[in-house]
Amino acid sequence: MVPIVLIVGESDSGKTFLVEQVVSKLTAKGYRIATIKHNAHGFDIDRKGKDSWRHKQAGASTVILSAPDQIAVIKDLKEEQSLDEIQRLWIRDADLIVAEGYKGADSPKIEVSLFKDSSELVCSQDERLVAVVSNKELSLDVPIFQEAEIDRLVKWLEERFINQYQEPKVEIFLSGKPVSLTPFLQKLIRNTLRGFLSALKGWDPQGLVEIKISAEALERIQKDESK
Amino acid sequence: MVPIVLIVGESDSGKTFLVEQVVSKLTAKGYRIATIKHNAHGFDIDRKGKDSWRHKQAGASTVILSAPDQIAVIKDLKEEQSLDEIQRLWIRDADLIVAEGYKGADSPKIEVSLFKDSSELVCSQDERLVAVVSNKELSLDVPIFQEAEIDRLVKWLEERFINQYQEPKVEIFLSGKPVSLTPFLQKLIRNTLRGFLSALKGWDPQGLVEIKISAEALERIQKDESK
Repeated sequence: MVPIVLIVGESDSGKTFLVEQVVSKLTAKGYRIATIKHNAHGFDIDRKGKDSWRHKQAGASTVILSAPDQIAVIKDLKEEQSLDEIQRLWIRDADLIVAEGYKGADSPKIEVSLFKDSSELVCSQDERLVAVVSNKELSLDVPIFQEAEIDRLVKWLEERFINQYQEPKVEIFLSGKPVSLTPFLQKLIRNTLRGFLSALKGWDPQGLVEIKISAEALERIQKDESK
Repeated sequence: MVPIVLIVGESDSGKTFLVEQVVSKLTAKGYRIATIKHNAHGFDIDRKGKDSWRHKQAGASTVILSAPDQIAVIKDLKEEQSLDEIQRLWIRDADLIVAEGYKGADSPKIEVSLFKDSSELVCSQDERLVAVVSNKELSLDVPIFQEAEIDRLVKWLEERFINQYQEPKVEIFLSGKPVSLTPFLQKLIRNTLRGFLSALKGWDPQGLVEIKISAEALERIQKDESK
């Protein structure tokens, strides 16, 4: 799974400001960042009168806008998707997910307390609190970063989240070229193979499994199939 | 795969009008319709100043807006996704996909020629042309629907596209409850099982494969694994 960090805090405490700072600095370092914004009261997207807006108004349950450099998907839901579902269903090709506004979720949290006078934190008792961004004097067990120290925070995020990201444990190479596999597909292949191989002598749940099939053998299989 | 129909035609010929009509009438009948709008020159979505807009401006390669009744995903691409890719990666839970503006694609097309005087069609020579919507006198081998006959067109779409939709050929039931499988997952499971079962005596490529494992057996497996 792509690692995730939540930016939490009171309203108007500087959450979006921090997301902007962190995303722009990590993007400048070459990372691909996905963000999630939680809107408890729904959101307004697309512009009145645009073709895609007209599709949605007509009742389409999914509307997709496709362009050479961008794609957008707007989809009706029967019930809200959890962070887990969003991660699994919608996010590919990212090095880090930064989500804003999920203070109840069970993922690592950075609390922002910049633009408010109060020094009370909404997540001070939360064991998933991993850092705080504030200019105030605070006594906490987690690292505190001041507004002027965002570069240090970004470095900390790199070390703590991005570099800790476990390499995919299932890799497939076709004629030496790696095949892109989503975390879900990796899990599926891993579990399928585990079920299959665990019946074999020599099976070690901690071991490395390597399966190699020569190009020639694959070609023979294809010929057999097309007969 | 969810069936797809393309609405094509000259600019300002009434494509979006037809999509609106068809989508709203099919939605009223209880179908879930997904639409795709092709924007060769890119699109503008989201509103300046909104949090999600600020995330995107900061450089996020994927931005997600999540609400209880809706989700939106905006993602940067290195190259444009084909209709096939869009179908496979982004569309679930739809009965029909209606796409606007893919006249070069290899899928069934309905050409609209309503709001233009010219009676020339952009896809008259296209063998994927399956119907035309026009008030003009045209001599064609495909059904022609007038503007006043959209109810008849909708019925034709139901019969020709939605009801023809092949039921998923791979179904999994866990304790009797069906598991939702994307077309891609169905293909993966089908091919994996085919590879596995084709070595067995009694294998018939045209036959029906049923695998049943009792709840009790599954429970035993789980217990074995947790040892």
